[in-house]
Formats: sequence, structure tokens, C-alpha cells
Amino acid sequence: MVYFCYFHLLFHVMRIKPEFDLIPEEGWRKKIYEIVYLSHTKAGKIFDISLLILILFSTILLMVETIPIIRLQYYKEFYYAEFFITLIFTIEYILRIICIKDREEYIFSPLGIIDFLSIIPFYISLFFPIWHFVAIIRMLRILRIFRIFNLADYMHDGRFIVSALKHSSRKIYIFLLFMIIFIVIIGSLMYVVEGGKNGFSSIPQSVYWAVVTITTVGYGDISPGTPVGKILSIIVMLCGYSIIAVPTGIVTSEFRKQKKNNFQCQRCGNQDNDEDARYCKTCGEKII
Amino acid sequence: MVYFCYFHLLFHVMRIKPEFDLIPEEGWRKKIYEIVYLSHTKAGKIFDISLLILILFSTILLMVETIPIIRLQYYKEFYYAEFFITLIFTIEYILRIICIKDREEYIFSPLGIIDFLSIIPFYISLFFPIWHFVAIIRMLRILRIFRIFNLADYMHDGRFIVSALKHSSRKIYIFLLFMIIFIVIIGSLMYVVEGGKNGFSSIPQSVYWAVVTITTVGYGDISPGTPVGKILSIIVMLCGYSIIAVPTGIVTSEFRKQKKNNFQCQRCGNQDNDEDARYCKTCGEKII
Amino acid sequence: MVYFCYFHLLFHVMRIKPEFDLIPEEGWRKKIYEIVYLSHTKAGKIFDISLLILILFSTILLMVETIPIIRLQYYKEFYYAEFFITLIFTIEYILRIICIKDREEYIFSPLGIIDFLSIIPFYISLFFPIWHFVAIIRMLRILRIFRIFNLADYMHDGRFIVSALKHSSRKIYIFLLFMIIFIVIIGSLMYVVEGGKNGFSSIPQSVYWAVVTITTVGYGDISPGTPVGKILSIIVMLCGYSIIAVPTGIVTSEFRKQKKNNFQCQRCGNQDNDEDARYCKTCGEKII
Amino acid sequence: MVYFCYFHLLFHVMRIKPEFDLIPEEGWRKKIYEIVYLSHTKAGKIFDISLLILILFSTILLMVETIPIIRLQYYKEFYYAEFFITLIFTIEYILRIICIKDREEYIFSPLGIIDFLSIIPFYISLFFPIWHFVAIIRMLRILRIFRIFNLADYMHDGRFIVSALKHSSRKIYIFLLFMIIFIVIIGSLMYVVEGGKNGFSSIPQSVYWAVVTITTVGYGDISPGTPVGKILSIIVMLCGYSIIAVPTGIVTSEFRKQKKNNFQCQRCGNQDNDEDARYCKTCGEKII
Repeated sequence: MVYFCYFHLLFHVMRIKPEFDLIPEEGWRKKIYEIVYLSHTKAGKIFDISLLILILFSTILLMVETIPIIRLQYYKEFYYAEFFITLIFTIEYILRIICIKDREEYIFSPLGIIDFLSIIPFYISLFFPIWHFVAIIRMLRILRIFRIFNLADYMHDGRFIVSALKHSSRKIYIFLLFMIIFIVIIGSLMYVVEGGKNGFSSIPQSVYWAVVTITTVGYGDISPGTPVGKILSIIVMLCGYSIIAVPTGIVTSEFRKQKKNNFQCQRCGNQDNDEDARYCKTCGEKII
Repeated sequence: MVYFCYFHLLFHVMRIKPEFDLIPEEGWRKKIYEIVYLSHTKAGKIFDISLLILILFSTILLMVETIPIIRLQYYKEFYYAEFFITLIFTIEYILRIICIKDREEYIFSPLGIIDFLSIIPFYISLFFPIWHFVAIIRMLRILRIFRIFNLADYMHDGRFIVSALKHSSRKIYIFLLFMIIFIVIIGSLMYVVEGGKNGFSSIPQSVYWAVVTITTVGYGDISPGTPVGKILSIIVMLCGYSIIAVPTGIVTSEFRKQKKNNFQCQRCGNQDNDEDARYCKTCGEKII
Repeated sequence: MVYFCYFHLLFHVMRIKPEFDLIPEEGWRKKIYEIVYLSHTKAGKIFDISLLILILFSTILLMVETIPIIRLQYYKEFYYAEFFITLIFTIEYILRIICIKDREEYIFSPLGIIDFLSIIPFYISLFFPIWHFVAIIRMLRILRIFRIFNLADYMHDGRFIVSALKHSSRKIYIFLLFMIIFIVIIGSLMYVVEGGKNGFSSIPQSVYWAVVTITTVGYGDISPGTPVGKILSIIVMLCGYSIIAVPTGIVTSEFRKQKKNNFQCQRCGNQDNDEDARYCKTCGEKII
Repeated sequence: MVYFCYFHLLFHVMRIKPEFDLIPEEGWRKKIYEIVYLSHTKAGKIFDISLLILILFSTILLMVETIPIIRLQYYKEFYYAEFFITLIFTIEYILRIICIKDREEYIFSPLGIIDFLSIIPFYISLFFPIWHFVAIIRMLRILRIFRIFNLADYMHDGRFIVSALKHSSRKIYIFLLFMIIFIVIIGSLMYVVEGGKNGFSSIPQSVYWAVVTITTVGYGDISPGTPVGKILSIIVMLCGYSIIAVPTGIVTSEFRKQKKNNFQCQRCGNQDNDEDARYCKTCGEKII
């Protein structure tokens, strides 16, 4: 699932701080390291903030570029701007690599891969124009904002949300499997009931309708036309109504579990003691 | 309700493992039993996995078949593929029956019924073509995946979700009864207010609109046209907004109840000890 | 609010059981009382069940009647059916009144009022046809089902839901006030932004759009056309997304509070002790 | 974010009661102070209630005024009514200022600013007509209702909701950041997949679609046309389904946290005593 990949990525970005584990090179390369990776010096802070602005600017550029009227008029200008920004990102990427000793660790870390994916689409797009928009992935680099501005509280909350989602993912997966089977069966039923009319032209189309309905999105591009179809969709909607409660229930109870500030026992190492525990529940040791 | 039937079915599929209770026949039939029912031997595993692939493949086939362009061109091919797959499923079904002693138990178990419903629609469709699509029910056989790959954790979570839904079903039923009465009254009111225009051509039609609105699906195929109708639907929408909280509240609190199985301490009487606690968290007393 | 009136009504219907408090007349009227009000005798049970069927039947009749094709063809038949059903309900209503001593108590109880509203619309509709559909209110009489079939568990759950809604109603009211102010401001802003075009022809119309959007119903009969309008509605939608969590939070926490089985203290009468309390939290008395 | 500004404003309006901190002038100005600021005298109550009615009336006026048919016919009448109401509000504003000693405190308090914003748009609109509708902000003055009618319970609940939202705002902010990045990436992907057709004419447009879909609003003004686009939007919808659970989880757990203020027992260490407990519920010890 695209969505969980995204959250697993967030999880890695939020947990791994390659900057603190990377070993800088000696001499002038260490200077670069301090500017490029760290943000407690003035030069480093300026570098980071101007990079952030550039990322935001280039993301907006990529989006605005696609508006037909603007594209026709300023095609050239956008091309040069994109070229220039990619050049800066490429230089930055090279600097990041040459100023550290353990290069593989950075290159294959999630952040390193995102940095790489921010520049490569432009070079590919010279041959395959469609690849151009993959560069939007550079938006993920904005997540660096938390470290740059030292937003520890925000980062902690972000990690909290991602962790709660990660822990509830197995239940969500299985719930989605149940849902998908249910949706396919309902979609097929609806195809038979509507007799291939009113937009229900095939089972995949009816399945699309079933998803739109159960998730309460309801575009209205396909809607039942026959009385029996309407009765069936009333049932489906009322079901969707109670089903929507399930992921909420899963995530909410996970949020509450996460909330507990589990204490580790000194003697047996059990980390699962409740916030209000005074004795370890595994070995009975007093917790201070 | 279709939906709760579905979840009750899931409940049975997840709980009953006919394979472990069935008594195999002697001799060569026992060999078949080990391949068809069990999956710890190599032959059994291969059999199970190829069956899973076949189920998935045939489900996709059934869906793709209905796309008008594809149907016109490959009608014959689809027919033969479906014939071939049903033949395999029929042989498998016969094998499953002849290699066990207590045949009734398998035939009338939920899994046995699903297996039967996976093959019979093809034979009926020779006479009544519309029955053809009932075969989509074979998708439910995918639920075997958990046992085949020994996904005990997933199965436990699945059973947890289904059980929480089962326990909250009585409250959901009564909530739905309240909702249905409310929806019918609102629908009638709307029919009177809109005067049979703007798509509100009859009370059943208005009731359909009321369901679409309260569940926040909102297709937009019917929407109020008169000022009074708009004011009334504003009220209905704001109601739907607070009502959607009810099933969520029901399921969430059920999820939480399912979660804990608190033990009471013998010494201090603290009842808030976790399921896996071995010592009371308040006084440190050992729990038996 | 229509909706809370409805739930307050449910609350009364579920709580008050006029049948057990009413004092029957003597003689033959007592016989009628036992049939009409009680359902433990065979005659009473038959009476109640046939009444239920009649209510359901007449509700469906009222709905089906409005379908244009059916109405044109069977106008006469529907009229006579409605006349006949109302006659039966009128006789039942008279019987209910004459067989008890404290007639005011029944007549002015919620159930008595509903019984009255089930018959009177027919007589009014002889002069004012539009009143005809008010008779749909008789659907509320279906709620008697719980008592008739002795569904104590269902009734308890129903009362639980209604009580949780009642207790959270003050918070919901104030939340709705906040929402309404927010919606009016957003609606006005949108009217100015879209400049009276794209369906945003007046502020009331824009407010209607704002409600449709924030409640995530999204008919699509009005949707923003200008870029600024789209940006504004993106913000409104993301808000609606977080706001929908508020009623859920209110009701869910109310559900949990309701769940606790509070014990009353023997000494001080405090009824708010937790389920797991061993000493009264107000006076310190031991709870048995 | 518009929305959080609104709730932060509510927070201030609900917390700060300028009336109780302001020092009145002497002599006749004190009399005015008692009428204008306080509501325990009869004159003060009458003043407050008539003010409330005037606010409500002028809000409805502003809304109704924009309906094209009404505007054309009664343009003059609306203008004079608005002129008259603004005059009264201006006099009231001047009275509020002259009868207190610490004028800055009132003028720059949230309530003072709202009072000012209720009158100034009219004067600006003489030169820039578009400013006219900013006057709708005066609706916020309705929040005074709680103090005027002494609705302490409602005010407490209002403060509770606002406070829960305030405490969960950091998590909501970061969740929205995650969402926005996800939405932009999905929007771009959809733009590429649909190839600029079916309403996906540019990335900003596709992002608008992604917001409409993930928040389950689903206008249907833009909906996917190609098979790949439909499959992608099925994934997005199923994601939106699980994502909607996150803000609910955040707010619900915040609601629960707000609710309790548990005291720890001195003797047995039980930390689960309720806010209003006077004796420990586990050991019966008195709590100080």
C-alpha cells in the first residue's frame, strides 16, 4: 500500500538522524560537513534555511508550471529555473557525500535516497519528459524542518503519530483485506442488480463505485438508477457508516496505549509497566 | 443485514478450523488428506499455494470478463478458462470429501459451504446465465491464507476485530433501528417540503436521499432545490455529523473492553492489573 | 434541533412504561386492558403482534403510495386501505382510553401522543391533503417492539445509547454553536471570494455550501470555481477533517463514562463510585 | 490556519472576562458602566438582551441582503437598516470606552477588537463596497450569550472543548503537515496518470481533487476517468479511510486526558483516584 509505505518512510525519517552518526572527513571537508550537516553554527543555520526555502520554492514551481496558461507563456523561464535549482541540489548532494567517511550509510539512508530522487528526475526528463514530475518527491525534504528549527516537541509528536500508525498497521491491513473482499462481492452484486446500466458497466467499475460509497466519498459520477440498486446501496451506506468506526476504534485504542509512559524494570528489564505502576508486573521489583 | 452476515461468517471462518478436527480415512486417502487439508508437508504447501493463486486468478478473471470491450473479443477464452478452473475446484471438492470420515462436518461447515458455492454457480449458469457471477463468492476462500502461511498474529488480530464487531452488534442494531425511523421521518418531511420536485419524486426516493446525506456519502444525484429544503438539509447534515460519532463511540469502547482482562490483587484489591501481569502493580503481591 | 427532540423522545419512550403504572378499570374493561396493554397472555400477544404488522404495513403503504406511477393507478385502493387502517387505530386508541382509570396519564404520555398523532392526520387530510404524510409518525410506534418481544437486553442498550447522547448533548450544543458561527463566517468569505458566481449566488447559499463541505457530505451541486475559492475550500476541508473528530471525541468519552457501573455508598449515598472502588470516595466507607 | 485562529480566539473570548477586571470611571459614567458591562441589574439585563437581538437581527440582515431578488427590490431599506444598526453599535462602542479607566485593556482585548470590527466595515464600505461583508464578524459577539444568561455549565463545556483542541493542536498541526506532503505527491501522481484530462488539468487542480477525496467530501466536479486513475483513487480512498481515524484518535485521547486529574493516595500509592475523590478508593485513606 502506497499509504503505509509513506508512513513507514516517515517513521524512518523521524527516527534515523544520519547527521549525528556520520563521521566527518578531516581538514576542509570537516568545515563543509559542519555547514551541510549541522545547524548549530551560523553558517550551517543559514545554509539549512536557504535550502528549505529553495525546496519549498521549487515544489511550488513544479506545481504552478503545470497550469496550462502559465506553461504556454513562461515555458522557457520555468525550464531554466528548474535547471538552476537542480544544479544547486546536485552540488549539495555531492558536498554531502564527499565530506563524510561512511558514504554508503548516507547514500542508502532514507534521507539520502530522497536527496538523490530530488535531483535525478530532471536528468532523466531530458530523455523521458514524463519523469519530470517525480521531482515532487523533494517535498519530503521539508521534513528536515523539525531538526533545523530544533522542534523537538513537534518531532516527538510526529514520531508518536507514526508509531501509533505503525503499531496499528497489522490490524488495519487485515481490516482492509476484509473490506476488499466485502467490496468486491458488493460490487459484483450491484453489477448484476443494475444490469450493466447507469454507469455500472463492468465489475471493476462497480467495485470502484462500492469503494466510493463505503468510504463515504460519494463523487456521484456513478449512482444507482434502479429501485433495487437504490435499496442495495442504502444497505451498503448504512454498513459503511458502522464500518468507518472500525479503523477509528483501532487507531484510538492504539493512541491510548502509546500514551502510557511505560517504565522499565531495573531487575528484569520488562519495559511494559504502566505509568502508574509501583511494582514491576513481571518480577515484583519496586519501581522508583 | 448483509454486512453482519458477512462478519458473522468471518467469525466462523476464523474460529472453526475444520482441518484439525476432521478424521482422515485410512490408506491412500490419508495421503490425499495430508496434501489437501494440511500444509506442513511440502506437497501440501505447494497444493495450498497453487490453490490460492488459482482463486485469486479466477476472481480477477471474473471481474475483467465483464468489461465490455474485453468480453466481446475474448468471450470464448474466458468461457474455457472458467470451465477449466471450475473443473479443478470440483475435483478438489470431491477429494476433500472422499478423504475424510466425517463428511457432514466438512460439507456443512462455513468453509465447506463456501467451497461448494465456488463451483455450483458455473453449472447453474449453463441454464441461467445470471448465476454466473455468484462464483465471486469464491473470493472468501482467500481467507485460508492466514492458516496456509501460518499468520497466527494476523489471524489473532482478525479474530479480535470480528469479535469486537460481534460484541457491539446488538448496540449497532438498535442504533440502526433508531436511525431508520429517523431517516424515514426526515425523508417524508423532505418530500412534503420539496413538493415532489428536484428529484424528491416520492418518499422512497427522499428516504434514499436522507440516507445518502446522513451517512455523509453525498452523491449529489438528488439535492434540495427550495430554500426551506436547504435549511432542512443543513439541519440533517449537522445531525449526521453528531450521529456519526455514535457507532464510533460504540466500537471504540468495545475495542477497549476487548483489550483488557484485568486481574484483581488478593492483598490490596487493586483490580487494574494487566492481563500479563505476574505481580500486582500497586503492592507488589504475586498474582496467581 | 429536530434531532435532539427525536432523541429526547426516544429517551422518554424507553424510560416510561405507562402500561405498568396504569390502573385498569373493573369488569369487562379489565379484560380489554389485559389484551390491549399487556402481552403476557396469548390474546395480548396476538393483539400486539398483529398491531406491529399493521404499523409496518401502513408505513410501507404511506411510502409506496407517493411513487407517481403507483399513485396514478391505485389511488382509490390506497385511499381505502389508509381509511381502514386509521379506523382500526382509532378503535384501538379509544379502547386504550376507556379501559384505564387514569386517562390523562396515558393521553399525555409520549406514547399516547404518538398514538394520537398516528390517527389524526388522516382526518385532517380530508380537509388539508398535505397533512396526510404526518401519519408517518406512527412509525415511532414500532419502538414498542422491545417490550412486546421482551427484548430487555436490546432495550437496555437502546437506553444506554440514548442516555450517552443525552449526557453529551450540552457539549454537542455548544460545539454546534461554535460550528454555526464558523460556518457563517466561512460562507460569507466564500461569497466574497467567488464574487456571487459558480452557484455562490448569496450568503445563505454559501452557508449551505459550507455546511455541505464541513460535514464532508459534498453533494457537488455547488463547488468553487476560482483558484482562490479552491484554496479556501481546501483549508475548509482540512478543517472539517479535524473538526469531525470533536463530536466523536465527546460521544466516545461519554460512552466510556456511561460504561462504568457506579456503586452507591451505603453511608453517604454517593452514587459516583467507580466500578473498581473498594472505599467510597466521598466518605471513606467500605463498599461491599 | 484560519481554523485554529478561530479556536484560539474562542479560547481567549471564553477565558478573558474583561468586564470583571475593568475599573469603571466615577459619577454618571459608573452608571453607564453598570448598564453596558454588567448584567445583574435590570437595566443591564435589558441592554444586554436587546443588544443580542440586534446582533442576531443584523447578521440575518447581512445574509438575506445578498439574495439577488431581495437585494434588487429592497436595496434602499437594507442600506438604511444597516446604517441605523451600525450607528447603535458605534454609540455602544463609544460608551464602552468612555465609562472605564483602563481603556487600552478593553480596546485591545479580543472582545474589544471584535466590537471594533463590527462597526468599521460599514464606514470602509462607503468607499470600498466589498468590505461591507466583513461586518459578519459581529456574529462572534453572540458568544457573550453565555455570560449574559449566566450559562456557567455551557461556558465550562465550551472551555473544555476549546482547551482539548488547543492541547491537541500541535499533534494536529504535524499530522496536517504529513497530510499535505502526501496530498501533493498523490496529486502530482494523479496528474501524470490522468495525463491532464478529466479535469486534472494541472497539479494544483489535482491537489484540490486529492483533498476533496481524502477528506471524503467528494464533490464529484473532478473524478478519475482512466482505469489506472480509478485504481489509484481506490487506493487513495482506502487510505483516507484509515487516515480519518488519526485526528479522531488524537482528539478523543485528549478529551479523555482533560477529563481526569487523578490524585495519588499517600498510603497505598493508588494513583487512580478521581478528581472529586475525598477518600482513596483502594484503601480508604483520606486525601488531602
